[in-house]
Amino acid sequence: MLTIQKEDSTTMKYTFAARFNNITPSGIRAVLEKAAGPDMINFSPGFPDNDAFPANDIQKISQDVLKEDIYTILQYSRGTTYPPLKKALKAFFNRQEKIFTENDDLMVTSGSGEGLEMAAKVFLNPGESIIVEDPTFVGALNGFISNDAKLLGVPVESDGMNLGLLEEAMQSTPAPKLLYIIPTFQNPTCITTSLEKRRAIYDLCLKYNIIILEDNPYGTLRFKGKTIPTLKSIDTEGIVVYCASLSKIISPGIRLGTIIANKEIIDKFNILKGASAGAVTNWSQHVIARFLETVDMDKHLAHLQSVYGKKSTFMVEMMKKTFHPDVKFTTPEGGMFVWFELPKYADARTFLNRATTMHIAIVNEETFAVNRRDKMNGFRLSFTSATMEQIETGIAKLGKLTYELCK
Amino acid sequence: MLTIQKEDSTTMKYTFAARFNNITPSGIRAVLEKAAGPDMINFSPGFPDNDAFPANDIQKISQDVLKEDIYTILQYSRGTTYPPLKKALKAFFNRQEKIFTENDDLMVTSGSGEGLEMAAKVFLNPGESIIVEDPTFVGALNGFISNDAKLLGVPVESDGMNLGLLEEAMQSTPAPKLLYIIPTFQNPTCITTSLEKRRAIYDLCLKYNIIILEDNPYGTLRFKGKTIPTLKSIDTEGIVVYCASLSKIISPGIRLGTIIANKEIIDKFNILKGASAGAVTNWSQHVIARFLETVDMDKHLAHLQSVYGKKSTFMVEMMKKTFHPDVKFTTPEGGMFVWFELPKYADARTFLNRATTMHIAIVNEETFAVNRRDKMNGFRLSFTSATMEQIETGIAKLGKLTYELCK
Repeated sequence: MLTIQKEDSTTMKYTFAARFNNITPSGIRAVLEKAAGPDMINFSPGFPDNDAFPANDIQKISQDVLKEDIYTILQYSRGTTYPPLKKALKAFFNRQEKIFTENDDLMVTSGSGEGLEMAAKVFLNPGESIIVEDPTFVGALNGFISNDAKLLGVPVESDGMNLGLLEEAMQSTPAPKLLYIIPTFQNPTCITTSLEKRRAIYDLCLKYNIIILEDNPYGTLRFKGKTIPTLKSIDTEGIVVYCASLSKIISPGIRLGTIIANKEIIDKFNILKGASAGAVTNWSQHVIARFLETVDMDKHLAHLQSVYGKKSTFMVEMMKKTFHPDVKFTTPEGGMFVWFELPKYADARTFLNRATTMHIAIVNEETFAVNRRDKMNGFRLSFTSATMEQIETGIAKLGKLTYELCK
Repeated sequence: MLTIQKEDSTTMKYTFAARFNNITPSGIRAVLEKAAGPDMINFSPGFPDNDAFPANDIQKISQDVLKEDIYTILQYSRGTTYPPLKKALKAFFNRQEKIFTENDDLMVTSGSGEGLEMAAKVFLNPGESIIVEDPTFVGALNGFISNDAKLLGVPVESDGMNLGLLEEAMQSTPAPKLLYIIPTFQNPTCITTSLEKRRAIYDLCLKYNIIILEDNPYGTLRFKGKTIPTLKSIDTEGIVVYCASLSKIISPGIRLGTIIANKEIIDKFNILKGASAGAVTNWSQHVIARFLETVDMDKHLAHLQSVYGKKSTFMVEMMKKTFHPDVKFTTPEGGMFVWFELPKYADARTFLNRATTMHIAIVNEETFAVNRRDKMNGFRLSFTSATMEQIETGIAKLGKLTYELCK
């Protein structure tokens, strides 16, 4: 029951829905606040590099579409997705593999977060379960929890989820209905699930009647190695719901994500979107449609891959040069992050606190963890928004810190 | 349990969350589809008049803010609400009465729909109840239902909800936690709750520990009569959550709504928004901030009031001239709609079908009803987006139809 009690003249006491007890406040924000300062080096967020933004194109296109379509842009839209944008996105996603099939439809969302959160609402009744990689994107976890979903975490290995533990999770009661996975350049570990494991995971989902929610915000940011087919492209049975975002490759401020899935499924997403936020801002939809129609996307992506490839390589080189040999890390082939792990004997909390005190913002494994483990010694470093100078200075300082903690 | 069965080569069978069983497909869309045609007269949607859009201002402001702040606009925002927009909205809402108090905070939403839907999630556990006016805005109802809320409808009289039935609803088990109300120019009935009833409703909510969700999208569109204080402005105890929208007074395509409530409550809205859609498109937030800072809003609103006042007056005059005397309707003092009721002896379904066949789109009471009633003979007519010629022709045709059905 709701109780409203006056505590003093300015504070009321409210009773909120129980779901808030399970939502973790953002560890990323907390670190950022502590590390704040004029000399802060920010390895924490998955923010694009300002230099990677197609600022001139957006300015020009905005002026054009506002001139041509001002009344359409200012009025309510018909439906959630602007038809020319749907067409352009379909072409974009299908340029290398068949992601959008003839049985599919597409709905535009506000970033990919809205689509992920809605997926729980589309498929799960309160208290039902979703299988997730552990660790994984904390924003998605909070979205699922906000719909009273139960999380079943499956540990991630160097080539993807542990299959034995995954099948165990699938056999739990009540039967899980959804599996959430970032198969390419996973957040936060930057691991890419191997093709073999993708096929095995897909087959297990078919066997246990589980819908796959494939989140692929970083797939196009591959700067080396060979592309591995998405789960959506190997899906013959219509069980994959594919989420992508233009946040990392065009602009996050424009808030444009996409869900691609069987028409029946997209119908449900449209119903929920109509009963909540409605369509994404028409301006964003018109600008991005025109952008995809007129800009050479291969060239644009090649530019991003080059910018981030350089930064990533430099960060890894600096880590090789300055980090204690007991610290493990992998060399990313794409995405926005490097993941490293301190040896089990070192204290991760001290490392985090000392880094923060030096005004270096990094994010620790605990922030992304589904199940508490004894020793969570991993850290995520973003190389995208820091400058080369900041990478050089910041990694050297962190390197010194690894030597102080590993002896 | 989820079952995926292949029915034929192109259709899968999915099991979706049970909440979809309770969401009504939009009756408005169905009517629009049936009435479609090159000569359609559309009295159905709450769309602003194109002439009421400040198109030139938006074009100019867009160019300015994209020139000044392009990188801020393209990057992720910090938090859900752009601080200068918060400041401008606070000033706007407080220009006539104290809506935003020192204990309050404000969050920007995608239209007001997102905020209404989230309110159910902030306060209600699955299966808990919300009291609503009957009939009321169907979009809000679907938002509540999509969060597994139970609706308790209270009939609306000419001066607001029936107080006896309201108190009865408040005493039901489990105890309702929220009351949703559009006190000014209610959708669809265009009724304005009297000050006396506002105070009585407020006192009842205090007595029964119920949070009031006050939705006020039309309040500024008053073209005659005296303004009645909002529930938020008479709220001394912090129990009113105030939702407003710029959709009806600036542009719906820009998708900008607002929630104003006690800081503790807004914190929860921010958590949910961060775990879902994230901030509203930065462009919209920057453009509207600048708009509110630089445009004379009193003059702008006076223009809208004049445009809609004229259309409303003309529609009512035409109804007086052409409708059968047994049809009851009120003269709106603001908002976007005229509500009329056929006499109980006339058949509303036939009226709707005949109007639709004549390509006149109107919306019937059933679309907005919470509880099924025997005779739902009301209809909503929107006077905002039709031209004066369409109002003249359309109302004359509907008038003829009233004579055919009332004899």
